[in-house]
Amino acid sequence: MVIIIGAAMLIPASVDLYFGNPDWLIFTQASFTSIGIGGMTCLACRSDIGPRVTARQGYVLTGFSWIAVSVTGALPLWFSSLDISFCDAVFETISGLTTTGSTVLSGLDRMPPGLLLWRSIMQWLGGIGIIVTALALLPMMRVGGMQLFQMESSDRSEKLSPRMRDMCLQIVVIYAMLSLTCMVLYRIFGMTWFEAINHAMTTLATGGYSTTDQSFGKFAGNWPLHWVGTVFMFAGGLPFTAYAVMVRKRSIRALFDNQQIRLFLLVSAFFTVLLTIRLMQISDDGLWASFTLAAFNLVSVITTTGFASGDYLQWGPVAVMLFFFATFIGGCSGSTAGGFKMFRLYVVFSGLRAHFLRLRSPSAVTVSYIDRNEITSDIYSAVTVFVFLLSISYIGVTVALGFTGLDLITAMSASATALANVGPGMGPIIGPAGNFQSLPDAAKWVLDIAMVLGRLEFETLLVLLLPAFWRD
Amino acid sequence: MVIIIGAAMLIPASVDLYFGNPDWLIFTQASFTSIGIGGMTCLACRSDIGPRVTARQGYVLTGFSWIAVSVTGALPLWFSSLDISFCDAVFETISGLTTTGSTVLSGLDRMPPGLLLWRSIMQWLGGIGIIVTALALLPMMRVGGMQLFQMESSDRSEKLSPRMRDMCLQIVVIYAMLSLTCMVLYRIFGMTWFEAINHAMTTLATGGYSTTDQSFGKFAGNWPLHWVGTVFMFAGGLPFTAYAVMVRKRSIRALFDNQQIRLFLLVSAFFTVLLTIRLMQISDDGLWASFTLAAFNLVSVITTTGFASGDYLQWGPVAVMLFFFATFIGGCSGSTAGGFKMFRLYVVFSGLRAHFLRLRSPSAVTVSYIDRNEITSDIYSAVTVFVFLLSISYIGVTVALGFTGLDLITAMSASATALANVGPGMGPIIGPAGNFQSLPDAAKWVLDIAMVLGRLEFETLLVLLLPAFWRD
Repeated sequence: MVIIIGAAMLIPASVDLYFGNPDWLIFTQASFTSIGIGGMTCLACRSDIGPRVTARQGYVLTGFSWIAVSVTGALPLWFSSLDISFCDAVFETISGLTTTGSTVLSGLDRMPPGLLLWRSIMQWLGGIGIIVTALALLPMMRVGGMQLFQMESSDRSEKLSPRMRDMCLQIVVIYAMLSLTCMVLYRIFGMTWFEAINHAMTTLATGGYSTTDQSFGKFAGNWPLHWVGTVFMFAGGLPFTAYAVMVRKRSIRALFDNQQIRLFLLVSAFFTVLLTIRLMQISDDGLWASFTLAAFNLVSVITTTGFASGDYLQWGPVAVMLFFFATFIGGCSGSTAGGFKMFRLYVVFSGLRAHFLRLRSPSAVTVSYIDRNEITSDIYSAVTVFVFLLSISYIGVTVALGFTGLDLITAMSASATALANVGPGMGPIIGPAGNFQSLPDAAKWVLDIAMVLGRLEFETLLVLLLPAFWRD
Repeated sequence: MVIIIGAAMLIPASVDLYFGNPDWLIFTQASFTSIGIGGMTCLACRSDIGPRVTARQGYVLTGFSWIAVSVTGALPLWFSSLDISFCDAVFETISGLTTTGSTVLSGLDRMPPGLLLWRSIMQWLGGIGIIVTALALLPMMRVGGMQLFQMESSDRSEKLSPRMRDMCLQIVVIYAMLSLTCMVLYRIFGMTWFEAINHAMTTLATGGYSTTDQSFGKFAGNWPLHWVGTVFMFAGGLPFTAYAVMVRKRSIRALFDNQQIRLFLLVSAFFTVLLTIRLMQISDDGLWASFTLAAFNLVSVITTTGFASGDYLQWGPVAVMLFFFATFIGGCSGSTAGGFKMFRLYVVFSGLRAHFLRLRSPSAVTVSYIDRNEITSDIYSAVTVFVFLLSISYIGVTVALGFTGLDLITAMSASATALANVGPGMGPIIGPAGNFQSLPDAAKWVLDIAMVLGRLEFETLLVLLLPAFWRD
C-alpha cells in the first residue's frame, strides 16, 4: 500500500513540473522515499512459503497499515510550500484516504495544482481501496455482517479465489469508467478540465474534497452541474458488485432488483421531499431550485460525500435535524460510502418486523431474506454489534472532543461526521461553510482515530482494546 | 386502574378540606366521577368465565388504559383553580404517572397543598405501578427481554401465580417503608413535614416533581439533605426484587451480589468522578460541595428522577454532554426508573465481549450469564429490538418536535428526556432552570406520546402501528 501511495505521488509531481511549480521536487522525493521504504519492507518480509496470518495478526496489521499509509500520504503535504503542521498534514491525509473530506486547508483557489490533485487522488484511491477491502477482506474476517457478501460459501479460504480476483478487477474498471464519465459531464456542463478531473474523483469516491473553498457553492445556479453531481454521488453510494451484475446481465433494471439500492432510493427520496418542502417554506427559490438544492445536499450527506452547495444550516432547525440524522445513515455496503449503510438498515427493519409478528403470534416462524439470501442470526448479531460499537464510539469521541474544549454542537456533529466519514459538521465552526483548521490539535488527533474507526467499521480496531484478545 | 386513581383523589380532597381550600370540591367530584365510571365499566364487563385476553387484545388494552388513566388523573387539574388548558392538564398527568417529572406549572410555592399533593401521589402510584407491571405483566408478554425476570419458567401461565402475588405485595410494602424512611430523614434534615411527604414520594418514584419552582435548589448548601436525596433516588433506581431477596436472606450484602446493581454503582461512580473534576475546575466550591452537587445531579438524571440543584448546564460543554448521554442510561430493570437500564447495558457488554472473543478464535463457544441466568439469544434479540425502537422513536420524536417549531437543542433534549422519563432537558427553555409551559401545544402532545412510549418500553405501543399486526 505504501508503494501504491508512493507511485501515485508521481502524478502530482509531473503536473507541478509541467506548471513550473517547485513542489514537484517535494512530491518526487516523497515518492521515492515511500517506494523505497515500501519496497525494502516487502523484500525483508518476502518468503517462499507465502504469508500465513492469524486472525490476531490480521487485526494488528490492519491498524498498523493505516498508520503507515497515513504518514506516507502526509509527507508531501507536510514538506510542501503550504507550511502546515504535521498534525494538520496527517488530518488532511486521513480525511482524504477515508473519503471523509473534512479539510483544514483554506485558500484552496490559490493553491498549486499538484497539491489539489494529490488530495483528490488520495480520496479516489481510498474509495476504490475500501470497496476492494469490503469485497475481499472483511467477509473473510466475518466483520460487520459482511459475510453475506461472500460470493459463495466455499470462498471462505484464506486466499483470494480467482473468481474474486476477476470481480475485483472488473470493479476497478467500472469505478474508473464511472469517474471518466462524470469528468466529461462535469466539463460539458461548465467546469474547467482541472475542476472536472478533481471533482469527478472526489464524487465517485464519495469523498468531497473540492478545488475551491466554496465547494459546489462556486457553481450556484448551475443546476445541470448539480444534477450531474447528485447522480454520480449516488452512483458512488451503490454497491459496486451490483454494477458488475448489471454488466454481466446487460440490463440496467438488474441494478434496481437489488434491495439495498431500492431502500437507498426510498430513504433518499423521503428525506429529499421533506427538505424540499422545508426549503420552499423559507425561500422564494421555486420548486425546481429548492428540489435541486435539497436533493444535492441530502445526497451529498447521505452518501457521506460532503460537498456543500450553500449553507444548509440556514434552512432552520428541522433541516438541521434531518441533516444530522442523515449523517449517520450512509450509502450501501460495498460502495465507497461510510455510515450505518442500507444493508444494515434493511436487516434492522426485517428484524423488527419479524419480532413484532412473533409478539402477536409467539409460535410463528419468521425467516427474512435480503436479495434471496437468508438473514441468519449471525447477521443479526453482527449488525447489533455494529450498532453498539457505533454508539459507544460516538459517546466516547464526543466526550473526548468536549474535553479538548469544543462546544456541544461542534463536538456532537464533528464526532458524527468523522465516524460516518461524511465531512462537514454542524455549527459555525465546522459547518458546510466552515473549516476544521481552528480546532485544537488534540481534537484533530481524536478525529483522526474516529475517521479510521468509522472507515474500518469499528470492530477491526476496537477488538485491539480488549484485554482478552491479547491473552493466549 | 381508574378506580384506584379516583380513590387516591380523596387524599388531596381531605387535605384541601382541612386547609379550607375550595379545590376539595373539585377533587371529590372528580373522585366520584372516576370511581363511578370505573365501577360501571367493571360491572359491565364482569363475567364468571374470567377474562381471556389474546396477545393482540392485550396490547390494545394497554394503549387504551393509558388514555383512560391520563384523562382521569387530569380531571382535578383541569377543573381546579389553576385555570390551565386540557392539553397542559394531560401533559402534567402523563408526566406524573410515567414518573417523568417535566412540569408545565410555575408558581408552585404559592399553589394550594391539595394540588401539589396530587402531583406527588400520581408519581408515587406511577412508580409502584410500573414495578408491578414489569414484574407481573411484561415477562408474560415477553417484552423487552424481561422474560429473564420471570420467577420460574412454569410461571408462563396467563394468571398471576400465588408466589408472584406474594412477591408483589412484599414489594409494595418495601416501597412504602422506603418512602416513609425517606420522609422522616427529609424532615430531620430540614424540610417541613409537607415538603418531606411530597419529596419522599417523588424521590422513591424517581419522578422529580417538587413543591417549589427551585426544585432542590431551595435547599442549596444543605448537603446532608442532598445526600438523603441522592441515596433514596439511587434506592428507587434499584430492582425491587433485589430488596425482597435481601429481606428474605436478612443480609444487606445480598443486594450487592446483583450484577445490575454493581454495574449501576460503577457507571454512576464513573460519571460522578468526571463531573466532580469538571466542577472543581470551574468553581471554588471545594471537593465536598462539588462532589455532593455532582453526585446529586448525576444520580438525579441517571435514575431518571429529574430533581435539579442549581443549573448544571452552566458547568460547561463536557458536563452538558455527560448529562445528555446519562439521560438515556436509566436505572435498573424492575425499578421505578426509565431509560435504557442496567440490565440491557450488561447484556450489551456481555454480547460485545463474546463477539470479540469469537473474532479472535472463531470456533470458541461463549456463554454469558447475568445473576447465574444464561443470556440466551432471545434476550440478545429483545435488547437489540429495544435499541432500534429507541433510536427510531428518538429520531421520529425529535423531527416531529422540530416541525412544531422547537430549536435543535430543545427538540433533541426534550425528546431524550421524555423517552427516558427523566424530566428536565437542555437549553434555556426546558433546562433544569426552565419549564415546559412555553412549548406549543402540538409539542406537548408529541411529548405525551413519547413519555408513554418510553414508560412502556416502546414495543407494547409501536406494535400497534404494524399493518401485519392487524391482519388475521
